[in-house]
Amino acid sequence: MVKKRLASGEPCRKCAQAEDMLRRRGLWHRIDEVVWAQEGDPDAAGWRLAAEHGIDTAPFFVVRDAAGERVYTSALKLTKEALAQGAPAPPAQPASAGPSPDDLAAAARELEGARPEDIVAWALSRYGKTCAIAFSGAEDVVLLDIAARTGLPFSAFCLDTGRLDPETYEHIDAVRDHYGIEIDMVLPDPEPVRELVRRKGLFSFYRDGHEECCNVRKVAPLEATLSHYRAWLTGQRRDQNEATRSALPAVQADPRFSGPTGPLVKLNPLAAWTAADVWAAIHERGIPYNPLFDRGYRSIGCAPCTRPVPPGKSDRAGRWWWEHADDKECGLHVGSKPSSAKPA
Amino acid sequence: MVKKRLASGEPCRKCAQAEDMLRRRGLWHRIDEVVWAQEGDPDAAGWRLAAEHGIDTAPFFVVRDAAGERVYTSALKLTKEALAQGAPAPPAQPASAGPSPDDLAAAARELEGARPEDIVAWALSRYGKTCAIAFSGAEDVVLLDIAARTGLPFSAFCLDTGRLDPETYEHIDAVRDHYGIEIDMVLPDPEPVRELVRRKGLFSFYRDGHEECCNVRKVAPLEATLSHYRAWLTGQRRDQNEATRSALPAVQADPRFSGPTGPLVKLNPLAAWTAADVWAAIHERGIPYNPLFDRGYRSIGCAPCTRPVPPGKSDRAGRWWWEHADDKECGLHVGSKPSSAKPA
Amino acid sequence: MVKKRLASGEPCRKCAQAEDMLRRRGLWHRIDEVVWAQEGDPDAAGWRLAAEHGIDTAPFFVVRDAAGERVYTSALKLTKEALAQGAPAPPAQPASAGPSPDDLAAAARELEGARPEDIVAWALSRYGKTCAIAFSGAEDVVLLDIAARTGLPFSAFCLDTGRLDPETYEHIDAVRDHYGIEIDMVLPDPEPVRELVRRKGLFSFYRDGHEECCNVRKVAPLEATLSHYRAWLTGQRRDQNEATRSALPAVQADPRFSGPTGPLVKLNPLAAWTAADVWAAIHERGIPYNPLFDRGYRSIGCAPCTRPVPPGKSDRAGRWWWEHADDKECGLHVGSKPSSAKPA
Amino acid sequence: MVKKRLASGEPCRKCAQAEDMLRRRGLWHRIDEVVWAQEGDPDAAGWRLAAEHGIDTAPFFVVRDAAGERVYTSALKLTKEALAQGAPAPPAQPASAGPSPDDLAAAARELEGARPEDIVAWALSRYGKTCAIAFSGAEDVVLLDIAARTGLPFSAFCLDTGRLDPETYEHIDAVRDHYGIEIDMVLPDPEPVRELVRRKGLFSFYRDGHEECCNVRKVAPLEATLSHYRAWLTGQRRDQNEATRSALPAVQADPRFSGPTGPLVKLNPLAAWTAADVWAAIHERGIPYNPLFDRGYRSIGCAPCTRPVPPGKSDRAGRWWWEHADDKECGLHVGSKPSSAKPA
Repeated sequence: MVKKRLASGEPCRKCAQAEDMLRRRGLWHRIDEVVWAQEGDPDAAGWRLAAEHGIDTAPFFVVRDAAGERVYTSALKLTKEALAQGAPAPPAQPASAGPSPDDLAAAARELEGARPEDIVAWALSRYGKTCAIAFSGAEDVVLLDIAARTGLPFSAFCLDTGRLDPETYEHIDAVRDHYGIEIDMVLPDPEPVRELVRRKGLFSFYRDGHEECCNVRKVAPLEATLSHYRAWLTGQRRDQNEATRSALPAVQADPRFSGPTGPLVKLNPLAAWTAADVWAAIHERGIPYNPLFDRGYRSIGCAPCTRPVPPGKSDRAGRWWWEHADDKECGLHVGSKPSSAKPA
Repeated sequence: MVKKRLASGEPCRKCAQAEDMLRRRGLWHRIDEVVWAQEGDPDAAGWRLAAEHGIDTAPFFVVRDAAGERVYTSALKLTKEALAQGAPAPPAQPASAGPSPDDLAAAARELEGARPEDIVAWALSRYGKTCAIAFSGAEDVVLLDIAARTGLPFSAFCLDTGRLDPETYEHIDAVRDHYGIEIDMVLPDPEPVRELVRRKGLFSFYRDGHEECCNVRKVAPLEATLSHYRAWLTGQRRDQNEATRSALPAVQADPRFSGPTGPLVKLNPLAAWTAADVWAAIHERGIPYNPLFDRGYRSIGCAPCTRPVPPGKSDRAGRWWWEHADDKECGLHVGSKPSSAKPA
Repeated sequence: MVKKRLASGEPCRKCAQAEDMLRRRGLWHRIDEVVWAQEGDPDAAGWRLAAEHGIDTAPFFVVRDAAGERVYTSALKLTKEALAQGAPAPPAQPASAGPSPDDLAAAARELEGARPEDIVAWALSRYGKTCAIAFSGAEDVVLLDIAARTGLPFSAFCLDTGRLDPETYEHIDAVRDHYGIEIDMVLPDPEPVRELVRRKGLFSFYRDGHEECCNVRKVAPLEATLSHYRAWLTGQRRDQNEATRSALPAVQADPRFSGPTGPLVKLNPLAAWTAADVWAAIHERGIPYNPLFDRGYRSIGCAPCTRPVPPGKSDRAGRWWWEHADDKECGLHVGSKPSSAKPA
Repeated sequence: MVKKRLASGEPCRKCAQAEDMLRRRGLWHRIDEVVWAQEGDPDAAGWRLAAEHGIDTAPFFVVRDAAGERVYTSALKLTKEALAQGAPAPPAQPASAGPSPDDLAAAARELEGARPEDIVAWALSRYGKTCAIAFSGAEDVVLLDIAARTGLPFSAFCLDTGRLDPETYEHIDAVRDHYGIEIDMVLPDPEPVRELVRRKGLFSFYRDGHEECCNVRKVAPLEATLSHYRAWLTGQRRDQNEATRSALPAVQADPRFSGPTGPLVKLNPLAAWTAADVWAAIHERGIPYNPLFDRGYRSIGCAPCTRPVPPGKSDRAGRWWWEHADDKECGLHVGSKPSSAKPA
């Protein structure tokens, strides 16, 4: 990497940003050497390299590999084309079939109690791009941060129900830019949505419960999406809901959805974390967070089904507040209850 | 219609609401007789009718037609099932082909300068359910009000881009309830949206202009929708945009889109109205309006592309404000410029 | 008290509200008898009493005491004129001098560890109207609730700096109505405020620290106000600020301010409570709370010096956030630090 | 004035700001000479002047007058101390008595139909600091702009009722900074406010009308303030209220208030302007405006008595909307009605 150094001794702003992005994406160790282009010194090594490649800007990157030598002036393009190719091969890329129940049970034993970082690294090194992070636009952004810092390839998607808050769309885009990652926005099939709205209007959930709407806008699109992956990571935590999540495992065979070739591996790396752990990480690492959290929101979903909560109320009190308190799940996650629960 | 009269002499609240809704929908003249069920007087004609039909509530409606006698206790169901059947047959239901250019030119001459009410009635009596009102969730709600008061059948749709403000969804639902009408929410095809977002993120319009996003979220869905109709009504007005709408006709062959069997008739009944005319009608008739208008908005579209404007700025200054001022159209409407304009 | 009973058997709405207010103010036990005025029965005892006193409404109250018999049709007026007179005499109304240091030390020992209810009752029964509750418009509303429920007389004031949020003024008024109490709004002396603003503008605290502004808008008015009282109650808690409040006693001689005749007794009945205790009480008892708490605020002061805080930040992070974190006090309270702290 | 020129040829940012402020205050023509201090050239004339006066910064100002030579490094201080002294002497400084009725009638004739700029200049050149602009924090900011551009001395005050919106305080401070002027914040006498609130609570105006509250928070403080001035300027316009302001003159003897030595001259320089004129000026000149105007507000007063208005409603519909529409004045201005109106 060629970095430009200003008269003040500092790297130029754009160079600093490029380095920062590589660090956030866990790719900084892939840079073999930093060559400086000193402002005002045309003989600096960096400027000579620039002249050699016929360019007059910094930062830029020279990549030498089997395919020859190439120059990138965009750090984002570099990460997509060059560094992705060179990403460490998953150590034990599984055959097309999913893990056997025995393998998964062994992994669950191995990872129970492990740090979120280790659970994530285990999954990404094993499944790579066939492992997807389900990002909701809420505090599960910490999961994206952990994944990006591994430097390993992964996928990410977001269920775009069409009814998210404008602030949530802004946050998702800010996360995309901050980490330089793609986030697949999964829209619902228009037909069942139109049909539901035609019959019941746009706010039927307040009268008839949220399941019907969640089904067409979230669950069905999730099912279709997961059918393309072999593993997925969620931000679920045991502390989120005593009634439905208190026995949530860190690793499990998905009790509801399946992948393209059979069982789907579901990982909940934050299962053992508390809200306090998540927020400590967000503040300490400067992770961007949804601005709705600055306005009293403590759980974030669709706009009409989410509201801020005052002190002294549980975080989930801001979701589907017109319904019975105990059993609030949108149907994305089942089988996490202490005892045998029927699928929601 | 059997109405309950309270001891005070007033109709019961639910009866008054039912009557009100029928009036708003232009169907009140279809009620042949009002029979009162006086509170506290079991011998009142209304109560005797109720006993006769084995019901104990009011309001209710007795319908007698060729198919026999039926009772409705829901005014909404009544309007859908009974009154819709009896809707006046379009006087000259056209054959499957659209109007000839000559016919349309004649109609345009006839309706130029006509009141919005007359233009709407002309269209609905001719095309009925095959005529659709394009409702944007903005002040064009006045068009729905005019249509509902004709008592004629019509269709209505709204382009649900997935990025509307939460307040706009609330308003659309309030309109649906207020007039007792269906509003077809037209969602975009998920694939081109995902593809655009994958490449450029969720706010590409700020950098690359709004057309690309409008195309996938509004124009393509509109085109697909209009292909099912023979005529459509828009809320466009000449005063909205000097540069693009000053020559807008009240009736035209759609210069861009076509219907299932050929040319599509496009009607702009409010073409000659000013914003002041529209708002006078809204306030005088108590038409429900989007609450964003109470917060400084004066034109309403997608959330990220709409903002309030201070006094002294043009209404369109709140739309796509980062772009050049003159030519702001989303692509739904072309051919409205004074001189020969290229399609946007 | 004469209550009107509706045909349904329920008391009329206004009667229920009057009873409710008397209960909230701890005065319900002072009603000797409830006499019903049954709707539709002119011979009911309540209606006869009404006729006797020449009135035709309910609720009303007949008071008989040494001064003769009087009728009140306003529950608020009743509480002010009649019930206040008959308020239980403070058991040991102190002479004009304040308590001796020894007395106060004994009281502090006696009340250390006591429930807030008992500390408040101890103070109100001893000082009555010469004891004032300092209400800030924040979660210390719970202190007013506790005081009102004792049924004992007390005073209440609020430092109206002129820069409170509109929502805070609404809340203060709602509290006034809910408990039927007077809250003295203490405005600052205009001259020092004008002088500060003339020199430094309206937001000098962001540059020069908040003390200068707090001094003229809060501390000086507080000092002037407290000089009229013998005791005051605050909502301070030890858990609010590790650095400045962790050794806060429940009862103390005020270390900074004095009353009209010497030492001022300062009581902090909530000293041992946590934020969770306060909010549990607010939700359980249906105590009205400042709506800003629904928007992410967790501590409330002046508008420009208060902001909401996201999860994972301390409650005080929303106050004077541009200043050093440890020592945030507005100067109303000193001497609460673990070790010998200099007066702020 | 010594200005620092950067290597790029541009003046330094602080220098540019200082010049800008002087231009906004109409004082730029008072700068006799600009001397440049070229970055990197210690021999530049500006740096030599700096060395001479023992300072090492720019911008700075050297003032030479009868009192000798002085250096200012603050443009604000310069305007207050040096330029104010040198302000053009009012051409015909009146004796201590106010203008005779005849003089005023002559002036009214002379200025009727004059541009606001000329009316303001007439007043300021005649009364200087004894002429005060009443600034409300609303669109009358344009009056301050006109006054500042004259370069003549004047006073300005704002009635700080203690119930203004937080945004209004921010705007007032922004105006103070933008023009480098003092704005006297006139707070009400605390006692009548406390007394009113004690009796009726903080929102009595919704029940009993706004006059009682306006009297203690606005009218009485205004009266006390005006007693120190000989003339005042208001932002009133005839188009604001058909019922009360349609005959508003540009110059008049104040029909209600008086100055220290008798009649008070009241000038309404914007009387003939429309809202459109005011807003055109604000946008063209880049005058800072209250951000509430971006949220649908079109008239601004106290927070609880002001609200935004939708299109199609009159600007005054956002003030005291719970009262009868015709006669909305806060009592600051009387005698502006077409026919003989009784003082409000």
